[in-house]
Amino acid sequence: MDSVTLLGHLLKQGQAVHCCIFHYGATLGKYETMAAELVTNYYLINYPDKISKRHIDISTIMAHFSSNLLAKYNQSIPEGYYTDASMEKTVVPSRNLIFASIMAGIAESIGVKQVALGVHAGDHPIYPDCRPEFVQALNETIQLSSGGKVEVLTPFVGMTKADILSLGYELPVPVPYHLTRSCYKNQPISCGKCGTCQERLEAFSIIGRKDPIQYEEMKGRGGSRCG
Amino acid sequence: MDSVTLLGHLLKQGQAVHCCIFHYGATLGKYETMAAELVTNYYLINYPDKISKRHIDISTIMAHFSSNLLAKYNQSIPEGYYTDASMEKTVVPSRNLIFASIMAGIAESIGVKQVALGVHAGDHPIYPDCRPEFVQALNETIQLSSGGKVEVLTPFVGMTKADILSLGYELPVPVPYHLTRSCYKNQPISCGKCGTCQERLEAFSIIGRKDPIQYEEMKGRGGSRCG
Repeated sequence: MDSVTLLGHLLKQGQAVHCCIFHYGATLGKYETMAAELVTNYYLINYPDKISKRHIDISTIMAHFSSNLLAKYNQSIPEGYYTDASMEKTVVPSRNLIFASIMAGIAESIGVKQVALGVHAGDHPIYPDCRPEFVQALNETIQLSSGGKVEVLTPFVGMTKADILSLGYELPVPVPYHLTRSCYKNQPISCGKCGTCQERLEAFSIIGRKDPIQYEEMKGRGGSRCG
Repeated sequence: MDSVTLLGHLLKQGQAVHCCIFHYGATLGKYETMAAELVTNYYLINYPDKISKRHIDISTIMAHFSSNLLAKYNQSIPEGYYTDASMEKTVVPSRNLIFASIMAGIAESIGVKQVALGVHAGDHPIYPDCRPEFVQALNETIQLSSGGKVEVLTPFVGMTKADILSLGYELPVPVPYHLTRSCYKNQPISCGKCGTCQERLEAFSIIGRKDPIQYEEMKGRGGSRCG
């Protein structure tokens, strides 16, 4: 949701955007990748000369990491609100740093001057690599690493997810939120229960709009025992 | 040579070291990987409880990069001294940043508090990601990214390659320089002509020792036209 709004935001500013779609592994993130394909194709139609993309396979690296987000089975994804201690298990160590490092190397290779990340304020409580001080240090590091050829853009770092949604709905080419997904579980229909689903639903609620994507039927909710 | 001295240096200090051997691709770096295997096995014998290793395949990432060092054919590796303009073509953009980012993620995953890099002063003229200011920013970024769990060690950042060699020869367990290689070319015997071979030979010359590895016969040198 954040990355897609960022893409729409940059395209609206007249920037050409080269999208990097990261693959964590063969099974993991399958539906996320499908959503990324749909979204970039949507923007390819709306801004045909301004957008290109590439798929980057980091599964051989992620095989060395420990995080429940990288586990193969859905049951290891904790349910509950984002700031809960259990959600810390979804942190992929060094994730944004690895993404940005690879993107910086590609940017330098193809002569692009900026890498953009959709990190935002809502992620700060449990994800240290989304905080403003991290982003500032990252920008300095990448500028030094590239000899001043590449810098980091994070226009949403001071915004909440609701702020991002508001911005997205104000863009002239509507952000295709109906094509996005946020769910941590590797299933076609979003669960509505994991931390990121709850954060997303809350953001839509704050701005007074209905989330256009489908969620699993909320069985057992509302006091029904027959579900 | 630098990484191996670093390994010997850290082991001598009593530290346990988990070695990360990066693979650029199937053909590229084949002999470098073989050398890394030999060296780590040498230290496994000398410090059996203090060393472990893993191989990390980054070839799917490097496929997106442009650098003559990543090209498949040796003829694209420039010959001549390191500071020559032609050697800039051997820069792999974002290389040390990517290495450090991945190592930081693995360190956090396995509960290790430091990542160590063998970057040194001699690399500064053409490699921006070896300079002290880069290393300082990188350390800050990784500390912030990991929430203070991981930091970066670069004990050689202020040293020349000759300084590193001197240190290596003073260690109680001799650094196995005969098992190392530095050559950029993907061939079993080092060329002796590329920038990194020349820098290595110069360092041995400065400390008054003979480099124990083999080099290609220097054909055509010394004025002979018959080679």
